[in-house]
Amino acid sequence: METKTNQIPTQTGGSFLINNIPESVFIESDFSEEQSMMVASAKEFVEQEVLPLADELEKKKDLSQTIALLQKAGDLGLLGLGVSENYGGIEVGFNTTLRVIEEMAKTTEFSPAIGVQTSIGIAPILLYGNERQKAQYIPDMVSGKSKGCYCLTEPDAGSDANSGKTKAVYNEAEKAYYLTGQKMWITNAGIADVFTVFAKIEDDENLSAFIVEKGFEGLTLGEEEDKMGIRASSTRQVFLNDVKVPEENLLGQRGEGFKMALNVLSTGRIKLGIGGLGVSKKAIDYAVEYAVNRKQFGQSISSFGAIQQKLAKMVVKTYALQAAAYRTGELIDQKEEEYLKSGMSMEEAKAKAVSAYGIECAIIKVFGTEAQDFVVDEGLQIFGGMGFSEEAPMARLYRDSRISRIFEGTNEINRMLIVDMLLKKAMNGELDLMNAATAVQKELTNIPSLTPNENTDTLEKATEVLDNLKKITLIVAGAAAQKLIMKLKDEQEILMNVADMLIQIYLLESVIVKTKRIKETLGEEASAVQIDICQLFMLDAVKEVKNSAEEALWSFSEGDELKMVQMALKRFTKVEAFNLKDVRRRVAQKLIEDGRYKF
Amino acid sequence: METKTNQIPTQTGGSFLINNIPESVFIESDFSEEQSMMVASAKEFVEQEVLPLADELEKKKDLSQTIALLQKAGDLGLLGLGVSENYGGIEVGFNTTLRVIEEMAKTTEFSPAIGVQTSIGIAPILLYGNERQKAQYIPDMVSGKSKGCYCLTEPDAGSDANSGKTKAVYNEAEKAYYLTGQKMWITNAGIADVFTVFAKIEDDENLSAFIVEKGFEGLTLGEEEDKMGIRASSTRQVFLNDVKVPEENLLGQRGEGFKMALNVLSTGRIKLGIGGLGVSKKAIDYAVEYAVNRKQFGQSISSFGAIQQKLAKMVVKTYALQAAAYRTGELIDQKEEEYLKSGMSMEEAKAKAVSAYGIECAIIKVFGTEAQDFVVDEGLQIFGGMGFSEEAPMARLYRDSRISRIFEGTNEINRMLIVDMLLKKAMNGELDLMNAATAVQKELTNIPSLTPNENTDTLEKATEVLDNLKKITLIVAGAAAQKLIMKLKDEQEILMNVADMLIQIYLLESVIVKTKRIKETLGEEASAVQIDICQLFMLDAVKEVKNSAEEALWSFSEGDELKMVQMALKRFTKVEAFNLKDVRRRVAQKLIEDGRYKF
Repeated sequence: METKTNQIPTQTGGSFLINNIPESVFIESDFSEEQSMMVASAKEFVEQEVLPLADELEKKKDLSQTIALLQKAGDLGLLGLGVSENYGGIEVGFNTTLRVIEEMAKTTEFSPAIGVQTSIGIAPILLYGNERQKAQYIPDMVSGKSKGCYCLTEPDAGSDANSGKTKAVYNEAEKAYYLTGQKMWITNAGIADVFTVFAKIEDDENLSAFIVEKGFEGLTLGEEEDKMGIRASSTRQVFLNDVKVPEENLLGQRGEGFKMALNVLSTGRIKLGIGGLGVSKKAIDYAVEYAVNRKQFGQSISSFGAIQQKLAKMVVKTYALQAAAYRTGELIDQKEEEYLKSGMSMEEAKAKAVSAYGIECAIIKVFGTEAQDFVVDEGLQIFGGMGFSEEAPMARLYRDSRISRIFEGTNEINRMLIVDMLLKKAMNGELDLMNAATAVQKELTNIPSLTPNENTDTLEKATEVLDNLKKITLIVAGAAAQKLIMKLKDEQEILMNVADMLIQIYLLESVIVKTKRIKETLGEEASAVQIDICQLFMLDAVKEVKNSAEEALWSFSEGDELKMVQMALKRFTKVEAFNLKDVRRRVAQKLIEDGRYKF
Repeated sequence: METKTNQIPTQTGGSFLINNIPESVFIESDFSEEQSMMVASAKEFVEQEVLPLADELEKKKDLSQTIALLQKAGDLGLLGLGVSENYGGIEVGFNTTLRVIEEMAKTTEFSPAIGVQTSIGIAPILLYGNERQKAQYIPDMVSGKSKGCYCLTEPDAGSDANSGKTKAVYNEAEKAYYLTGQKMWITNAGIADVFTVFAKIEDDENLSAFIVEKGFEGLTLGEEEDKMGIRASSTRQVFLNDVKVPEENLLGQRGEGFKMALNVLSTGRIKLGIGGLGVSKKAIDYAVEYAVNRKQFGQSISSFGAIQQKLAKMVVKTYALQAAAYRTGELIDQKEEEYLKSGMSMEEAKAKAVSAYGIECAIIKVFGTEAQDFVVDEGLQIFGGMGFSEEAPMARLYRDSRISRIFEGTNEINRMLIVDMLLKKAMNGELDLMNAATAVQKELTNIPSLTPNENTDTLEKATEVLDNLKKITLIVAGAAAQKLIMKLKDEQEILMNVADMLIQIYLLESVIVKTKRIKETLGEEASAVQIDICQLFMLDAVKEVKNSAEEALWSFSEGDELKMVQMALKRFTKVEAFNLKDVRRRVAQKLIEDGRYKF
């Protein structure tokens, strides 16, 4: 296990809503030299092995090159990050793995193949397999010799995964299960040797998981799906027709499959979010290069306010995503260490650590994939007509990116999960939301101080704003919970409003602390642009929270109660005016000067 | 010329900002039976001729089917709408043409081929050609025998169209021009017989336009572009290497090309916007059908709040687009009649009528194409994994739609044009913006009435809100103009803010008047959902205007001045709370009940 270079106090998952802003978060410069070398190796693989083949990969129908590249990635150790050395892996922390995935994600047509292999391909067996299963399957998957896929979704069971109809019938005499059913949208199915198949044993209420091998009789594949993007990855249906699976291939305990599926998805979620970071950086780099080189009306289009505004908006979202994603990775790493010290196995510690931050993982997934689509869309627009051409890079990024808001639970499902997980933590006593909400309620009845705020430091002011946004979220979420508790699941719109508030708060907090750290390191002058970015993000966050709070309130509150909360909303969403245009231009100009995303 | 069924008072282009809300606007039920028959014929053509071939058209490399379909469209009279009978056309009004285009746009892979033929293909010759040129080229283009294309863009001249390098050199002896240059992104180039080529004669400052025929020596084409979408239409480069063009093929006057190009683009713009309407309706119809049929968690996903909210948002934007687009079409029709009465030729009247509403055409282009991408994106998300598959309809709609925000001037260029055209009208005395702005300024210094507003009618309240939004726009635009007049062109961000305010106002006004008319016709109960839609759009408009106003103000104003205007902003953007969630659900439920968009 790599050594930690930076000690950041640990926080319970979801506690960001009620805790004070943390002293510190992990930022990219915290990566050690050793960690950076791993990233460099991933970068080299992407730039020298994958990207030169990208056009071919995209257009080719057979997947032999995809298989060959996975093999190369295995040779370089890139498929076994975070996997125990016992199984041929390289024992790096979760954040290092994320950083490597960020690079890999830049090959959008190919990255799902490697993403599935290293996350939902390997993870079920690694995290829930017994010693024999792990020894049998993991080393070959880590080396790239064997490819894995994850068979959960069915034609009639997508978001509602646990409703799958695939059946497993036990045959006492043969000590084996017979699996029958149909799986859909299975990434890597066409190249896979090992299929993790979720199925219900007899009339079980919950899924179980099985390891099914390619050669098992009765396992067949549908045609390659004709997808809008990610065309260098295989996606097929998987048909199971009385497939005999030896009982020792049952993964974990009977009926545990759904829980396993969800935990594995949490890992997949933050990885998709960090993938969004890689793609966003790539899109920004292309866009700024194009904008500088493209001349219209006698000048680079990068000199126009309309273009600079776009570039700045792209940078702000990317910076925020970066701050929150690596903050979360570090929290997971710390939690894993904590669990390891308590005597858990590495795999158990890893699984539990990720699920401890299920809320944050879902937040990164939602924000990251939406930031990605936003950035790519604006990047395409900057390219003008050339953006629509498949000869230029933006069209493919646009097509490839669109799946991420659907993968691993649609963003709508993830939004509802964020609130659901938070409420569960409140109910089981892990988070004292009640007290926090009551405290804010009390503050509401006090007369606000009329002393003008003397704070002139942008980051301190942003911190005050953040505190206020937490208050307003507690008020709205508290009132909603009180009023609607029995039918909250029927109030998806309100759940999504609350999720949007939580997302903004977690992101803004990450942005502020990251920027503070940069300011401490570089000094005020050299961190001026980061402070600009922080201020821009703060304004976005305030608007989002205000809007979501209002939408929610209007939908469940009225009369005097509504009036009172709206006054609080006004009070807690105040921001001082600043010259938005100039601040955005400064951010864009720094990007143009640097020539690529370097924040 | 068809007879008018509904008399709506005419308004000067851009006057919506300073005038009171009009008594009436054209709505779809105003189309006469005769007009509706034309629409039915277009619908039939789309459904029976084009859509069955859509998959083949999309995948096929040769364009013979595209050519055959254009021929069929010509046989049905669909290529000559609005063209004088003298040239084989059918003399319908502009609004009827728009309504037909709305239907045609539903074949997204094919519609650019027909769109270019009927607008920028035919229009330059029809509107600016002399009698001989029109007689020679138009009848064949109307019948579909001959195909046209429009060669303006060059590799280094996109948004900056007048900077094109294509040269025309006059040869006195041969009474001909020799054209040399390179044109790019030319839709229909691969199937075209007639090329309208823009080029500069000698060292002219402005472009001229020429009719170039396919067979002229020296005209060659590049390879078919590999585009992200609209794959059933041809897009190629056009190379001109000393192409000899007889002087009688000069279109209009020397140096008039740029003006012609811009006017023709105005027509193209509203047509793109109305195309967005057709596509949005199609996407809604698919999405609601899928949502009703798709079961998860034991019920249709259309029963979930998260889905209903999406459906409602899709409907609201589409309804608004529809209201504003047909309102504009009618204004153009009226203006054309006015010009005809004053003795202009039909072609001149048509060209001048469209350019009189250049502001509104650009508004429809920007709002329509952005609504389209929003609706298609949400529709794709409702389809979940299936949305990403090319076997389902959403992926193609997503790819095909993305070009519209770039075509006929990017939406950024169009936003700046909206303000530019408005300011020009103010300067040349066509619009008395000055007085209007001064009146609002005066009102600001009055103490606002404290009598509570007793108005309980939603539409009347919306009208008050609209009036306030106009005021705030006048204040912000007025202040910006005063302060920045000398460098307004360097303040693109502020220009775009003002454009966004204008867009919302025009749309909201159209929505209110349309809804009033529906209410008058159907009564309050039967129009309840339309009133809901109006209320939802109003809220969106207020938020947009408020946000744009604030962004602009913060960027050019400060101190006491800013404080005073911010107070006005607060005062003029007040809206009463209403249960957003319930209202959205009602709209969605009506859509679900109807099974398709019928608003």
